Amino acid sequence: MRNIRYPNGKLPAGAQGGTQLPDRMKTEEFLALVQEKQASAANRGMSLEEELNESNAYYVAQGIASVHKKPTPIQIVKVEYPARSAAVIREAYFRQPSTTDYNGVYEGRYLDFEAKETRNKTSLPLGNFHAHQIDHMRLVCNQKGIAFAIIRFTQHDETYVLSASHIIRFWEEAAQGGRKSIPYAYIQEHGHLIPEGYRPRIDYLSVIKKHYF
Amino acid sequence: MRNIRYPNGKLPAGAQGGTQLPDRMKTEEFLALVQEKQASAANRGMSLEEELNESNAYYVAQGIASVHKKPTPIQIVKVEYPARSAAVIREAYFRQPSTTDYNGVYEGRYLDFEAKETRNKTSLPLGNFHAHQIDHMRLVCNQKGIAFAIIRFTQHDETYVLSASHIIRFWEEAAQGGRKSIPYAYIQEHGHLIPEGYRPRIDYLSVIKKHYF
Repeated sequence: MRNIRYPNGKLPAGAQGGTQLPDRMKTEEFLALVQEKQASAANRGMSLEEELNESNAYYVAQGIASVHKKPTPIQIVKVEYPARSAAVIREAYFRQPSTTDYNGVYEGRYLDFEAKETRNKTSLPLGNFHAHQIDHMRLVCNQKGIAFAIIRFTQHDETYVLSASHIIRFWEEAAQGGRKSIPYAYIQEHGHLIPEGYRPRIDYLSVIKKHYF
Repeated sequence: MRNIRYPNGKLPAGAQGGTQLPDRMKTEEFLALVQEKQASAANRGMSLEEELNESNAYYVAQGIASVHKKPTPIQIVKVEYPARSAAVIREAYFRQPSTTDYNGVYEGRYLDFEAKETRNKTSLPLGNFHAHQIDHMRLVCNQKGIAFAIIRFTQHDETYVLSASHIIRFWEEAAQGGRKSIPYAYIQEHGHLIPEGYRPRIDYLSVIKKHYF
Protein backbone atom coordinates (compact mmCIF):
# COMPACT_ATOMS: atom_id res chain seq x y z
CA MET A 1 0.00 0.00 0.00
CA ARG A 2 1.44 3.36 -1.05
CA ASN A 3 0.55 6.97 -0.46
CA ILE A 4 -0.44 9.09 -3.41
CA ARG A 5 0.15 12.82 -3.36
CA TYR A 6 -2.33 15.62 -3.94
CA PRO A 7 -0.93 18.96 -5.23
CA ASN A 8 -2.16 20.99 -2.27
CA GLY A 9 -1.87 18.25 0.29
CA LYS A 10 -5.58 18.40 1.05
CA LEU A 11 -8.35 15.85 0.88
CA PRO A 12 -10.95 16.30 -1.88
CA ALA A 13 -14.12 17.94 -0.57
CA GLY A 14 -16.17 14.76 -0.75
CA ALA A 15 -13.90 12.96 1.67
CA GLN A 16 -14.13 15.52 4.45
CA GLY A 17 -17.65 15.03 5.70
CA GLY A 18 -17.39 11.29 5.90
CA THR A 19 -14.55 11.31 8.37
CA GLN A 20 -17.01 12.13 11.12
CA LEU A 21 -18.78 8.77 10.78
CA PRO A 22 -18.14 6.91 14.02
CA ASP A 23 -17.13 3.54 12.65
CA ARG A 24 -14.51 4.57 10.13
CA MET A 25 -11.10 3.63 11.45
CA LYS A 26 -8.85 6.55 12.27
CA THR A 27 -5.49 6.58 10.51
CA GLU A 28 -3.68 6.09 13.84
CA GLU A 29 -5.94 3.19 14.74
CA PHE A 30 -5.51 1.56 11.35
CA LEU A 31 -1.73 2.02 11.29
CA ALA A 32 -1.42 0.67 14.83
CA LEU A 33 -3.29 -2.45 13.70
CA VAL A 34 -1.13 -2.93 10.60
CA GLN A 35 2.11 -2.24 12.50
CA GLU A 36 1.22 -4.68 15.28
CA LYS A 37 0.59 -7.38 12.67
CA GLN A 38 3.83 -6.63 10.83
CA ALA A 39 5.93 -6.48 14.01
CA SER A 40 4.40 -9.71 15.33
CA ALA A 41 5.16 -11.49 12.09
CA ALA A 42 8.64 -9.99 11.65
CA ASN A 43 10.63 -12.85 13.16
CA ARG A 44 8.43 -15.56 11.63
CA GLY A 45 8.10 -14.60 7.98
CA MET A 46 4.33 -15.12 7.88
CA SER A 47 1.64 -13.45 9.93
CA LEU A 48 -0.96 -15.51 11.78
CA GLU A 49 -3.53 -14.30 9.23
CA GLU A 50 -1.42 -15.53 6.31
CA GLU A 51 -0.83 -18.90 7.94
CA LEU A 52 -4.55 -19.27 8.69
CA ASN A 53 -5.47 -18.36 5.11
CA GLU A 54 -3.05 -20.98 3.87
CA SER A 55 -4.40 -23.58 6.31
CA ASN A 56 -7.99 -22.82 5.33
CA ALA A 57 -7.10 -23.08 1.63
CA TYR A 58 -5.63 -26.52 2.42
CA TYR A 59 -8.78 -27.61 4.27
CA VAL A 60 -10.96 -26.43 1.36
CA ALA A 61 -8.76 -28.03 -1.33
CA GLN A 62 -8.79 -31.35 0.57
CA GLY A 63 -12.54 -31.17 1.18
CA ILE A 64 -11.90 -31.31 4.95
CA ALA A 65 -13.89 -28.19 5.86
CA SER A 66 -15.18 -24.94 4.39
CA VAL A 67 -13.73 -22.07 6.42
CA HIS A 68 -12.93 -18.62 5.01
CA LYS A 69 -11.82 -15.22 6.20
CA LYS A 70 -14.46 -12.60 5.57
CA PRO A 71 -13.35 -9.69 3.39
CA THR A 72 -12.59 -6.43 5.19
CA PRO A 73 -15.73 -4.30 5.23
CA ILE A 74 -15.28 -1.18 3.11
CA GLN A 75 -17.57 1.82 2.71
CA ILE A 76 -17.41 2.78 -0.96
CA VAL A 77 -17.96 6.46 -1.78
CA LYS A 78 -16.74 6.98 -5.39
CA VAL A 79 -16.31 4.56 -8.27
CA GLU A 80 -15.05 5.24 -11.79
CA TYR A 81 -16.23 3.13 -14.71
CA PRO A 82 -13.64 3.29 -17.47
CA ALA A 83 -14.87 1.52 -20.62
CA ARG A 84 -13.39 -1.91 -21.39
CA SER A 85 -11.41 -2.17 -18.17
CA ALA A 86 -11.99 -2.72 -14.47
CA ALA A 87 -14.20 -0.44 -12.38
CA VAL A 88 -11.91 1.56 -10.06
CA ILE A 89 -12.83 2.53 -6.51
CA ARG A 90 -11.50 6.07 -5.98
CA GLU A 91 -12.72 6.83 -2.48
CA ALA A 92 -13.51 4.30 0.21
CA TYR A 93 -13.06 3.82 3.96
CA PHE A 94 -12.35 0.93 6.28
CA ARG A 95 -15.26 -0.02 8.56
CA GLN A 96 -15.24 -1.83 11.86
CA PRO A 97 -16.40 -5.41 11.27
CA SER A 98 -19.61 -6.37 13.10
CA THR A 99 -18.69 -10.04 13.38
CA THR A 100 -15.57 -12.12 13.82
CA ASP A 101 -13.24 -12.58 10.86
CA TYR A 102 -13.52 -16.30 10.13
CA ASN A 103 -16.40 -18.72 9.87
CA GLY A 104 -17.46 -21.88 8.12
CA VAL A 105 -18.61 -25.47 8.50
CA TYR A 106 -16.75 -28.61 9.61
CA GLU A 107 -18.48 -31.98 9.77
CA GLY A 108 -21.90 -30.42 10.30
CA ARG A 109 -20.76 -27.93 12.96
CA TYR A 110 -20.68 -24.16 12.54
CA LEU A 111 -17.27 -22.66 13.38
CA ASP A 112 -16.71 -18.97 14.13
CA PHE A 113 -13.49 -17.38 15.30
CA GLU A 114 -11.26 -14.38 15.55
CA ALA A 115 -7.45 -14.51 15.16
CA LYS A 116 -5.18 -12.36 17.34
CA GLU A 117 -1.45 -12.19 17.67
CA THR A 118 0.49 -10.29 20.30
CA ARG A 119 4.10 -9.57 21.17
CA ASN A 120 3.05 -9.24 24.80
CA LYS A 121 4.62 -12.08 26.82
CA THR A 122 2.30 -12.12 29.79
CA SER A 123 -1.24 -11.46 28.51
CA LEU A 124 -3.57 -10.72 25.61
CA PRO A 125 -5.05 -7.22 26.02
CA LEU A 126 -8.87 -7.22 25.70
CA GLY A 127 -8.51 -4.12 23.49
CA ASN A 128 -7.95 -6.66 20.72
CA PHE A 129 -11.71 -7.28 20.70
CA HIS A 130 -14.68 -4.97 20.05
CA ALA A 131 -18.00 -4.93 21.92
CA HIS A 132 -19.96 -6.06 18.84
CA GLN A 133 -17.60 -9.01 18.39
CA ILE A 134 -18.33 -10.10 21.96
CA ASP A 135 -22.09 -9.76 21.27
CA HIS A 136 -21.59 -11.80 18.13
CA MET A 137 -19.74 -14.57 20.03
CA ARG A 138 -22.56 -14.72 22.60
CA LEU A 139 -25.17 -15.19 19.86
CA VAL A 140 -23.09 -17.87 18.11
CA CYS A 141 -22.76 -19.78 21.42
CA ASN A 142 -26.52 -19.49 22.01
CA GLN A 143 -27.13 -20.85 18.50
CA LYS A 144 -24.88 -23.85 19.32
CA GLY A 145 -22.06 -22.82 17.03
CA ILE A 146 -18.43 -23.34 18.10
CA ALA A 147 -17.02 -19.88 18.84
CA PHE A 148 -13.40 -19.34 19.81
CA ALA A 149 -10.28 -17.26 19.26
CA ILE A 150 -6.96 -18.34 17.83
CA ILE A 151 -4.34 -16.50 19.86
CA ARG A 152 -0.65 -16.37 19.01
CA PHE A 153 2.01 -15.26 21.48
CA THR A 154 4.82 -14.48 19.07
CA GLN A 155 7.45 -14.19 21.83
CA HIS A 156 6.62 -17.70 22.99
CA ASP A 157 6.08 -18.96 19.45
CA GLU A 158 2.85 -20.60 20.61
CA THR A 159 -0.66 -20.50 19.15
CA TYR A 160 -3.74 -21.45 21.17
CA VAL A 161 -7.44 -22.10 20.67
CA LEU A 162 -9.41 -20.42 23.46
CA SER A 163 -13.19 -20.87 23.75
CA ALA A 164 -15.29 -17.73 23.39
CA SER A 165 -16.87 -18.39 26.81
CA HIS A 166 -13.56 -17.44 28.48
CA ILE A 167 -13.22 -14.26 26.42
CA ILE A 168 -16.82 -13.26 27.15
CA ARG A 169 -16.29 -13.81 30.88
CA PHE A 170 -13.07 -11.71 30.99
CA TRP A 171 -14.87 -9.01 28.94
CA GLU A 172 -17.77 -8.90 31.39
CA GLU A 173 -15.43 -8.78 34.39
CA ALA A 174 -13.44 -5.96 32.79
CA ALA A 175 -16.69 -4.00 32.41
CA GLN A 176 -17.14 -4.41 36.19
CA GLY A 177 -13.68 -3.01 36.84
CA GLY A 178 -11.73 -6.26 36.46
CA ARG A 179 -8.44 -6.68 34.60
CA LYS A 180 -8.28 -5.56 30.94
CA SER A 181 -6.37 -8.55 29.62
CA ILE A 182 -6.33 -12.35 29.62
CA PRO A 183 -3.17 -13.69 31.30
CA TYR A 184 -0.86 -15.93 29.30
CA ALA A 185 -0.89 -18.42 32.18
CA TYR A 186 -4.71 -18.57 32.02
CA ILE A 187 -4.63 -19.27 28.28
CA GLN A 188 -1.96 -21.96 28.83
CA GLU A 189 -4.27 -23.63 31.35
CA HIS A 190 -7.68 -23.19 29.69
CA GLY A 191 -6.75 -22.97 26.01
CA HIS A 192 -5.50 -25.71 23.71
CA LEU A 193 -2.06 -25.43 22.10
CA ILE A 194 -2.22 -25.91 18.32
CA PRO A 195 0.49 -28.18 16.93
CA GLU A 196 2.33 -26.46 14.07
CA GLY A 197 3.19 -28.44 10.99
CA TYR A 198 3.82 -28.18 7.30
CA ARG A 199 0.41 -28.92 5.77
CA PRO A 200 -1.62 -27.33 7.13
CA ARG A 201 0.67 -24.94 8.99
CA ILE A 202 -1.86 -24.37 11.77
CA ASP A 203 -3.96 -27.48 12.17
CA TYR A 204 -6.57 -25.90 14.43
CA LEU A 205 -9.27 -28.33 13.25
CA SER A 206 -7.44 -31.21 14.95
CA VAL A 207 -7.79 -29.28 18.22
CA ILE A 208 -11.45 -28.46 17.54
CA LYS A 209 -12.24 -32.08 16.74
CA LYS A 210 -10.49 -33.36 19.85
CA HIS A 211 -12.00 -30.90 22.33
CA TYR A 212 -15.36 -29.82 20.91
CA PHE A 213 -16.83 -32.88 19.22
CA MET B 1 -21.67 6.12 -6.44
CA ARG B 2 -20.41 8.94 -8.67
CA ASN B 3 -17.79 9.29 -11.35
CA ILE B 4 -14.90 11.63 -10.74
CA ARG B 5 -13.18 13.31 -13.68
CA TYR B 6 -9.49 13.37 -14.50
CA PRO B 7 -8.23 16.36 -16.52
CA ASN B 8 -6.99 14.27 -19.44
CA GLY B 9 -9.62 11.56 -19.15
CA LYS B 10 -6.99 8.89 -18.56
CA LEU B 11 -6.41 6.47 -15.73
CA PRO B 12 -3.41 7.13 -13.50
CA ALA B 13 -0.43 4.97 -14.45
CA GLY B 14 -0.73 2.73 -11.40
CA ALA B 15 -4.22 1.60 -12.32
CA GLN B 16 -3.35 0.38 -15.79
CA GLY B 17 -1.36 -2.73 -15.00
CA GLY B 18 -3.85 -4.15 -12.57
CA THR B 19 -6.69 -4.27 -15.06
CA GLN B 20 -5.14 -7.38 -16.58
CA LEU B 21 -5.75 -9.43 -13.45
CA PRO B 22 -8.31 -12.07 -14.40
CA ASP B 23 -10.67 -11.75 -11.47
CA ARG B 24 -11.24 -8.02 -11.45
CA MET B 25 -14.73 -7.28 -12.65
CA LYS B 26 -14.91 -5.42 -15.96
CA THR B 27 -16.86 -2.16 -15.90
CA GLU B 28 -19.51 -3.62 -18.21
CA GLU B 29 -19.85 -6.71 -16.02
CA PHE B 30 -20.08 -4.66 -12.84
CA LEU B 31 -22.59 -2.17 -14.28
CA ALA B 32 -24.74 -4.99 -15.67
CA LEU B 33 -24.86 -6.47 -12.17
CA VAL B 34 -25.78 -3.17 -10.53
CA GLN B 35 -28.36 -2.30 -13.19
CA GLU B 36 -30.03 -5.69 -12.98
CA LYS B 37 -30.36 -5.25 -9.19
CA GLN B 38 -31.72 -1.71 -9.55
CA ALA B 39 -34.18 -2.62 -12.31
CA SER B 40 -35.41 -5.66 -10.40
CA ALA B 41 -36.01 -3.58 -7.32
CA ALA B 42 -37.55 -0.63 -9.18
CA ASN B 43 -41.19 -1.56 -8.73
CA ARG B 44 -40.71 -2.79 -5.16
CA GLY B 45 -38.76 -0.06 -3.44
CA MET B 46 -36.28 -2.45 -1.84
CA SER B 47 -33.92 -4.90 -3.48
CA LEU B 48 -33.79 -8.53 -2.39
CA GLU B 49 -30.39 -7.81 -0.85
CA GLU B 50 -31.78 -4.92 1.22
CA GLU B 51 -34.74 -6.99 2.41
CA LEU B 52 -32.45 -9.88 3.35
CA ASN B 53 -30.11 -7.56 5.25
CA GLU B 54 -33.09 -6.20 7.14
CA SER B 55 -34.39 -9.71 7.85
CA ASN B 56 -30.97 -10.87 9.04
CA ALA B 57 -30.65 -7.82 11.30
CA TYR B 58 -34.03 -8.77 12.77
CA TYR B 59 -32.92 -12.38 13.36
CA VAL B 60 -29.72 -11.18 15.05
CA ALA B 61 -31.48 -8.56 17.19
CA GLN B 62 -34.02 -11.16 18.35
CA GLY B 63 -31.34 -13.77 19.00
CA ILE B 64 -33.05 -16.12 16.51
CA ALA B 65 -29.99 -16.79 14.35
CA SER B 66 -26.64 -15.30 13.37
CA VAL B 67 -26.63 -14.82 9.59
CA HIS B 68 -24.72 -12.05 7.80
CA LYS B 69 -23.89 -10.97 4.28
CA LYS B 70 -20.17 -11.12 3.64
CA PRO B 71 -18.58 -7.83 2.60
CA THR B 72 -17.75 -7.45 -1.10
CA PRO B 73 -14.15 -8.55 -1.65
CA ILE B 74 -11.99 -5.61 -2.68
CA GLN B 75 -8.38 -5.56 -3.85
CA ILE B 76 -6.79 -2.51 -2.27
CA VAL B 77 -3.95 -0.89 -4.22
CA LYS B 78 -3.44 2.58 -2.69
CA VAL B 79 -4.29 3.98 0.73
CA GLU B 80 -3.72 7.49 2.09
CA TYR B 81 -3.21 8.08 5.80
CA PRO B 82 -4.16 11.65 6.65
CA ALA B 83 -3.31 12.49 10.27
CA ARG B 84 -6.20 12.62 12.75
CA SER B 85 -8.85 11.44 10.28
CA ALA B 86 -9.90 8.27 8.50
CA ALA B 87 -7.56 6.30 6.25
CA VAL B 88 -8.78 6.77 2.66
CA ILE B 89 -8.60 4.08 0.00
CA ARG B 90 -7.67 5.80 -3.27
CA GLU B 91 -7.39 2.88 -5.65
CA ALA B 92 -9.12 -0.45 -5.30
CA TYR B 93 -10.90 -3.02 -7.46
CA PHE B 94 -13.87 -5.33 -7.08
CA ARG B 95 -12.99 -9.04 -6.95
CA GLN B 96 -15.09 -12.05 -7.75
CA PRO B 97 -16.19 -13.66 -4.47
CA SER B 98 -14.95 -17.23 -3.97
CA THR B 99 -17.91 -18.25 -1.81
CA THR B 100 -21.60 -17.45 -1.58
CA ASP B 101 -22.69 -14.12 -0.11
CA TYR B 102 -24.47 -15.15 3.09
CA ASN B 103 -23.71 -17.60 5.86
CA GLY B 104 -24.28 -18.18 9.53
CA VAL B 105 -25.70 -20.46 12.20
CA TYR B 106 -29.30 -21.30 13.15
CA GLU B 107 -30.09 -23.73 15.98
CA GLY B 108 -26.81 -25.57 15.59
CA ARG B 109 -26.96 -25.84 11.79
CA TYR B 110 -24.64 -24.08 9.36
CA LEU B 111 -26.53 -22.08 6.71
CA ASP B 112 -24.97 -20.90 3.44
CA PHE B 113 -26.76 -19.21 0.58
CA GLU B 114 -26.68 -16.94 -2.41
CA ALA B 115 -29.45 -14.43 -3.23
CA LYS B 116 -30.53 -13.83 -6.84
CA GLU B 117 -33.30 -11.75 -8.34
CA THR B 118 -34.37 -11.74 -11.96
CA ARG B 119 -36.91 -9.93 -14.14
CA ASN B 120 -37.04 -13.01 -16.34
CA LYS B 121 -40.53 -14.56 -16.08
CA THR B 122 -39.77 -18.08 -17.21
CA SER B 123 -36.37 -19.04 -15.78
CA LEU B 124 -33.30 -18.12 -13.73
CA PRO B 125 -30.22 -17.99 -16.03
CA LEU B 126 -27.31 -20.05 -14.65
CA GLY B 127 -25.03 -17.13 -15.56
CA ASN B 128 -26.12 -15.76 -12.18
CA PHE B 129 -23.69 -18.22 -10.57
CA HIS B 130 -19.92 -18.68 -10.89
CA ALA B 131 -18.01 -21.96 -11.07
CA HIS B 132 -16.29 -21.39 -7.71
CA GLN B 133 -19.66 -20.75 -6.06
CA ILE B 134 -20.87 -24.12 -7.32
CA ASP B 135 -17.67 -25.75 -5.96
CA HIS B 136 -18.30 -23.99 -2.67
CA MET B 137 -21.90 -25.26 -2.47
CA ARG B 138 -20.70 -28.82 -3.13
CA LEU B 139 -18.21 -28.62 -0.26
CA VAL B 140 -20.81 -27.14 2.11
CA CYS B 141 -23.22 -29.98 1.28
CA ASN B 142 -20.44 -32.55 1.86
CA GLN B 143 -19.72 -30.94 5.23
CA LYS B 144 -23.43 -31.29 6.14
CA GLY B 145 -24.20 -27.60 5.99
CA ILE B 146 -27.52 -26.38 4.56
CA ALA B 147 -26.73 -24.79 1.19
CA PHE B 148 -29.38 -23.10 -0.92
CA ALA B 149 -30.27 -20.07 -3.01
CA ILE B 150 -32.93 -17.46 -2.35
CA ILE B 151 -34.40 -16.65 -5.75
CA ARG B 152 -36.78 -13.78 -6.45
CA PHE B 153 -38.84 -13.52 -9.64
CA THR B 154 -39.72 -9.85 -9.52
CA GLN B 155 -42.33 -10.12 -12.30
CA HIS B 156 -44.18 -12.76 -10.30
CA ASP B 157 -43.45 -11.03 -6.98
CA GLU B 158 -42.38 -14.40 -5.55
CA THR B 159 -39.29 -15.44 -3.61
CA TYR B 160 -38.19 -19.07 -3.26
CA VAL B 161 -35.70 -21.17 -1.34
CA LEU B 162 -34.10 -23.70 -3.70
CA SER B 163 -31.67 -26.34 -2.39
CA ALA B 164 -28.12 -26.16 -3.73
CA SER B 165 -28.42 -29.78 -4.95
CA HIS B 166 -30.81 -28.63 -7.72
CA ILE B 167 -28.52 -25.77 -8.76
CA ILE B 168 -25.47 -28.07 -8.82
CA ARG B 169 -27.35 -30.61 -10.98
CA PHE B 170 -28.50 -27.97 -13.51
CA TRP B 171 -24.95 -26.59 -13.58
CA GLU B 172 -23.47 -30.03 -14.31
CA GLU B 173 -26.07 -30.72 -17.01
CA ALA B 174 -25.36 -27.33 -18.63
CA ALA B 175 -21.66 -28.28 -18.77
CA GLN B 176 -22.73 -31.40 -20.72
CA GLY B 177 -24.66 -29.27 -23.23
CA GLY B 178 -27.91 -29.04 -21.26
CA ARG B 179 -30.03 -25.91 -20.79
CA LYS B 180 -28.37 -22.81 -19.34
CA SER B 181 -31.16 -21.83 -16.96
CA ILE B 182 -33.45 -23.22 -14.27
CA PRO B 183 -37.12 -23.01 -15.36
CA TYR B 184 -39.55 -21.04 -13.23
CA ALA B 185 -41.91 -24.04 -13.27
CA TYR B 186 -39.12 -26.25 -11.89
CA ILE B 187 -38.45 -23.82 -9.05
CA GLN B 188 -42.20 -23.62 -8.30
CA GLU B 189 -42.26 -27.41 -8.01
CA HIS B 190 -38.96 -28.12 -6.22
CA GLY B 191 -38.40 -24.87 -4.34
CA HIS B 192 -40.23 -23.50 -1.30
CA LEU B 193 -42.11 -20.21 -1.55
CA ILE B 194 -41.11 -17.80 1.24
CA PRO B 195 -44.04 -16.04 2.90
CA GLU B 196 -43.50 -12.27 2.91
CA GLY B 197 -44.36 -10.31 5.99
CA TYR B 198 -43.55 -7.24 7.96
CA ARG B 199 -40.98 -8.45 10.50
CA PRO B 200 -38.96 -10.03 9.14
CA ARG B 201 -39.79 -9.09 5.56
CA ILE B 202 -38.42 -12.36 4.18
CA ASP B 203 -38.87 -15.06 6.79
CA TYR B 204 -36.70 -17.63 5.04
CA LEU B 205 -35.79 -19.32 8.34
CA SER B 206 -39.38 -20.50 8.74
CA VAL B 207 -38.97 -22.31 5.41
CA ILE B 208 -35.57 -23.72 6.40
CA LYS B 209 -36.91 -24.97 9.71
CA LYS B 210 -39.93 -26.60 8.11
CA HIS B 211 -38.12 -28.35 5.25
CA TYR B 212 -34.55 -28.94 6.42
CA PHE B 213 -34.78 -29.77 10.13
